[in-house]
Amino acid sequence: MTERIECDSNAETVAALRSELTLSEKVGQLVGTFVGSMGDRDISVADAKSEVVEDNVGTVAAFGIGVSRYHDAERVAEIANELQRTALEETSHGIPLLLPVDAVHGHAYIHDATVFPHGLGVAATRHPAYARTAGEITATEMRATGANVNYGPTSDVARDQRWGRTFETYGESPLLCGRFSAAAISGLESTTDSPRVAATAKHFPAYGDSAGGEDAAVVDRSSTTMYSQLLAPFEDALEEDPSIVMPCYNSIDGEPAHGSRRYLTELLRERLGFDGVVVSDWGGVDHLHEDHRVTASQRGSAKRAVQAGLDQVSVGHGEYAAHLESLVEAGELSEERIDEAVDRILALKVDLGLFDDPFVDHERTSEIIGRDDHREAAYETAKDSQTLLKNEDDLLPLSPSLESILVAGPNADSLRHQYGGWSVKHPEADSGTTVLEGVRDRVSESTTVRYEQGATMTESVDPDAVKSAAADSDVAVVVCGENWYFHEFGPNQLVGETGEFPTRSQLELPPAQRELLETVHATGTPTVLVTITGRPLAISWADEHIPAILQSYYPGSEGGRAVADVLFGKHNPAGRLPISVPRSAEQLPSRFNYYAHPTPIGDDEHPDTYDPLYEFGHGESYTTFECSTLEVDADEIGPAESVRATITVENTGDRAGARALDFFLRDEVSSIVRPVREHVAFTRVSLEPGESTTVSVTIPNAALAVTDSRGRRTVESGAFELTCEDCSTTFEVR
Amino acid sequence: MTERIECDSNAETVAALRSELTLSEKVGQLVGTFVGSMGDRDISVADAKSEVVEDNVGTVAAFGIGVSRYHDAERVAEIANELQRTALEETSHGIPLLLPVDAVHGHAYIHDATVFPHGLGVAATRHPAYARTAGEITATEMRATGANVNYGPTSDVARDQRWGRTFETYGESPLLCGRFSAAAISGLESTTDSPRVAATAKHFPAYGDSAGGEDAAVVDRSSTTMYSQLLAPFEDALEEDPSIVMPCYNSIDGEPAHGSRRYLTELLRERLGFDGVVVSDWGGVDHLHEDHRVTASQRGSAKRAVQAGLDQVSVGHGEYAAHLESLVEAGELSEERIDEAVDRILALKVDLGLFDDPFVDHERTSEIIGRDDHREAAYETAKDSQTLLKNEDDLLPLSPSLESILVAGPNADSLRHQYGGWSVKHPEADSGTTVLEGVRDRVSESTTVRYEQGATMTESVDPDAVKSAAADSDVAVVVCGENWYFHEFGPNQLVGETGEFPTRSQLELPPAQRELLETVHATGTPTVLVTITGRPLAISWADEHIPAILQSYYPGSEGGRAVADVLFGKHNPAGRLPISVPRSAEQLPSRFNYYAHPTPIGDDEHPDTYDPLYEFGHGESYTTFECSTLEVDADEIGPAESVRATITVENTGDRAGARALDFFLRDEVSSIVRPVREHVAFTRVSLEPGESTTVSVTIPNAALAVTDSRGRRTVESGAFELTCEDCSTTFEVR
Repeated sequence: MTERIECDSNAETVAALRSELTLSEKVGQLVGTFVGSMGDRDISVADAKSEVVEDNVGTVAAFGIGVSRYHDAERVAEIANELQRTALEETSHGIPLLLPVDAVHGHAYIHDATVFPHGLGVAATRHPAYARTAGEITATEMRATGANVNYGPTSDVARDQRWGRTFETYGESPLLCGRFSAAAISGLESTTDSPRVAATAKHFPAYGDSAGGEDAAVVDRSSTTMYSQLLAPFEDALEEDPSIVMPCYNSIDGEPAHGSRRYLTELLRERLGFDGVVVSDWGGVDHLHEDHRVTASQRGSAKRAVQAGLDQVSVGHGEYAAHLESLVEAGELSEERIDEAVDRILALKVDLGLFDDPFVDHERTSEIIGRDDHREAAYETAKDSQTLLKNEDDLLPLSPSLESILVAGPNADSLRHQYGGWSVKHPEADSGTTVLEGVRDRVSESTTVRYEQGATMTESVDPDAVKSAAADSDVAVVVCGENWYFHEFGPNQLVGETGEFPTRSQLELPPAQRELLETVHATGTPTVLVTITGRPLAISWADEHIPAILQSYYPGSEGGRAVADVLFGKHNPAGRLPISVPRSAEQLPSRFNYYAHPTPIGDDEHPDTYDPLYEFGHGESYTTFECSTLEVDADEIGPAESVRATITVENTGDRAGARALDFFLRDEVSSIVRPVREHVAFTRVSLEPGESTTVSVTIPNAALAVTDSRGRRTVESGAFELTCEDCSTTFEVR
Repeated sequence: MTERIECDSNAETVAALRSELTLSEKVGQLVGTFVGSMGDRDISVADAKSEVVEDNVGTVAAFGIGVSRYHDAERVAEIANELQRTALEETSHGIPLLLPVDAVHGHAYIHDATVFPHGLGVAATRHPAYARTAGEITATEMRATGANVNYGPTSDVARDQRWGRTFETYGESPLLCGRFSAAAISGLESTTDSPRVAATAKHFPAYGDSAGGEDAAVVDRSSTTMYSQLLAPFEDALEEDPSIVMPCYNSIDGEPAHGSRRYLTELLRERLGFDGVVVSDWGGVDHLHEDHRVTASQRGSAKRAVQAGLDQVSVGHGEYAAHLESLVEAGELSEERIDEAVDRILALKVDLGLFDDPFVDHERTSEIIGRDDHREAAYETAKDSQTLLKNEDDLLPLSPSLESILVAGPNADSLRHQYGGWSVKHPEADSGTTVLEGVRDRVSESTTVRYEQGATMTESVDPDAVKSAAADSDVAVVVCGENWYFHEFGPNQLVGETGEFPTRSQLELPPAQRELLETVHATGTPTVLVTITGRPLAISWADEHIPAILQSYYPGSEGGRAVADVLFGKHNPAGRLPISVPRSAEQLPSRFNYYAHPTPIGDDEHPDTYDPLYEFGHGESYTTFECSTLEVDADEIGPAESVRATITVENTGDRAGARALDFFLRDEVSSIVRPVREHVAFTRVSLEPGESTTVSVTIPNAALAVTDSRGRRTVESGAFELTCEDCSTTFEVR
């Protein structure tokens, strides 16, 4: 007997609904389930439905996730409707379901969805509007399948290039991570083309600086670094009011985030004022007893996590619901704390409009998924993410009318690898464009395009064929890099044995790919290397020998067109590295914003602290730009003021092009040691040949502040140096 | 007109003396000078004397340091006397001088002094008595030259194998670092063979975990790690009442130690109760404005450092004295703070007996330096430090009566490299025994000993000669490794260009040495690799191909005898690694006591966090040992109690030998994440073949405690697992 409740997000209405729920019904809202296979669980749609009915489970990750068996858009929309129907019609109060997905670069676990470049590529554009648009389109495609919660974007700063989740981030600059994740949240939460979805700021407060880049290992950093470098992007993200915050798997200063009152309540709620829902990462609560060993049992973990401030155990099933019920009954957990969490989840469901109508018109789903305008947006983003690392003797752009071209490499004709992790593992052939296809589309009719794979990730494929095809071609484009992976670096069934490339410690191209490159190069045919990778690989050999190198990140479904456009000059590349490319993993850490420190036996005896293969911000163009006259609007400002800076940029070459500009600040003297420079602003201009413009950016007052070990910020008086390109200027704070 | 003052360390007497000093005379006690060349300073003995007379400088690093020009024992004793005579006779109050030296492994900047193995080797013995004896002998040899302050030992924990000062430490176990540095302090401060010297616990509170192993880079670690891992050894060291504590160069959580009231006063004095002298590391105060940029000028650095709790600017010269005087006069620094520091320095001078007699009988100096009994002690230590990493098919020990042996490698016949840094750069040929000499002494008269250098550090030397000598020999011993260096990795004039091996990022043998090894190995002659290194090199190739590998650390003046004794079985090796040998620098961090953490997509998809080439504690023997019956004296203890554990060890082989035993504790559940295991006790037994014994160790109550982010320690109830070798047992805390 279903009793539908009409309500809005008004707190009293939510409380009224909650007050009608039994304790079992309430704790059911605090757990989720999924559909698919994971570990020793295999859950069908029917199973999930019975969890909804019997255990009052209020959230179902039914598709759009790695473990799902369903990837067909229309089919998943039907499943969504079926699950909502169950919740509405077969539970006492008819509370609709949250249906979360991992749509971190588009709704990419659904076939034919629009797949955007991953975060690292998006950040290379220096144009947050792309992240916002991607968020809007992702929300629209999600809603078309009935999904209403997105477990993304990530605000984590990538501080070790070995990390297997580097590609999901917006790089090593806290500023980029903050601005781009905020833009993504804004897009997801305010799309106008469909009802909005709930966005998740993750993984709070820090995931991206785990020891040695090992996934989920301890984040063993000082409070100062925590506040000023790792937490900072979350503050930007929270400005956009994401519905959800997800804690990180890691422990930080002795506390696993999932069980930490310090991070989830004192920091997140009391200090940063977050009033949304805190949802666990998948196994995050189980890890408390299984791995971190801060509790002795699953029941203990349930108690610790919820007391700490967690509102929902995302895949807690009936088990966690039962623990929570028993903890309340035993007086070990207050019902008020449960009510608080339930209210937040009900309010979210109200706000998402699920009480009004949780259903989707599954017959329209396919029209919306991968719509042309969506793909064009992904294409624009992918184009502007392309980062030209090297272009000796203007080898690029290539002439579309060249006689012959060899395209080779494991990533030349693989949508899977071009998508990267958090996407369908077996994309449909026509769901995107590979580099090979892009090249074929771009060259003249008379051009011979040869293709030799030459290598898989780790095995050589017919090197003799490669050699002869290269020798016979005017130019060779070798597309190397990394494959589809997530976390560290799985799953095995797709990627191969643990310990095979890619691995945490191996940041160089594997021998088979390197040999392919050497074979092609040895023929004397001018060679272009395109790297499609999740991490910035240490390509020292290539840098030394290959005349042109294009970093393509994971460019998504439209990546092949984007790469080809750059190769043939239809698009002038404007991407700038959002992360340093180290010379080797042995050299790490390698980041632009390292802390100043002494060299006890002298500078001459000490190699540079920051000496990467390519610096943060590196990126070439087919035209040339000159910057001049960097000025600030006041030589001296008060301690609560911001600074406006202007700089003149001229396109001094003979092609139109865009130029992103990064601004760095150096505090000459501060009571607390600061990084040698901090990335405080960025912008982007498009200029015709010969055109010049003056652009301005604001250096916000907050960027001037030093952060102490309690996270307190103070703007200290004294001199600051602002730099952009080769220009610099100074100003004083009174 | 000199007015000698008779006084003792009684606080009133010191205060009485101080009250007679002018402000200039007082601040002079708070600075030091040196004799030698450094940067743009070149200071002669005469210059130093005039600093003593004119600037009231109270401390002179006249010799026994890297920049000194004087290394002859008798000569430096004369200089010491000359300087003291100046202080006594040509200053108003005749206050004697502190004469500090860097005698970190013996008084090794003096020719013919006894040179002990560096710290890493000493820790491999698992026998702190060796560190104590080394301290006693070092103090005696120092005093024989007039030196009275030793800037050592180090209590730093080596947490990144790339670090150029790894060899000075006692390794990666906080327990070893604490116990061995405490033993060294105890020896230095309580030698009975001469007046004691002042020992320095350094570098407070943490130096050994700098970012990326870069020397003096930020120590960017959580409070929990700071307290539980990095600070812990200092607590052990302070138990022995060292006269001096030296801050580290690094910044930690935003504060450079040299200018940190948090570390130097709140932590060191108020919390840990240290009441001795805090002396700067050489450029440590200048770094505040020059590198850390927390002050704007040298004057500002003087103010910040002294306010923070620093008592002496070790090479501050008249400049810093003038700053301090002017700061007091300007009311920016209290005279009470100056008086407090002066009192500590005067009290130290009194305690060291310098007011009684600061002079040394320089005619007896040479008898004491490098005395036979001293060298025997160094020899015993070096022998017991030898760590047998691998011994396939019992290749070792070699027969002394073999027909022929090839000795090769850059470290086979080099005292300099065998000493390592912080030693004379050009040792006299007869001041120690090289491996080549040791082998020659150890073999039978009929044995042909061939020697080919084969390689310098980085250049091949006559590979054909090596090949033929190897082919003609029954066995080859190749002695590879690192050269003399200090810090990172200088100085150039000795070591070669910055960026040449050894470098921070290169943890493998350089190609020339690797090729030497390959050349010898390829002849089929059974090959032994001896590594004389400051860092645990990543010798994966050797591990795969070379049947026997002996890690010798920097074994000091008697190292050649020690190595030969092990090679030929006169001594059964018993050393155990005090630090993990990683497979590669790319793999770092690699340490036994990493924090527990989850593996989000499953253990099978995740390589082991700790997977070094050789684990902490690894070390083989020519005999075999079996351990059994690990027991604790109580299955359940109270929260303030300790545990006594016993284990039975049997020598099941056919040679006498010693065996060091490491005990590890695992807290099954703790409110704060702890390392997967902690090193809580160690001991060492010597057993005849067939002999068995039961040994006991105490697991102190403090080892059971968890440490929170404020450094508070609590013993929590619950289960603990204790392991030693293959044995384990459990106990409960009520």
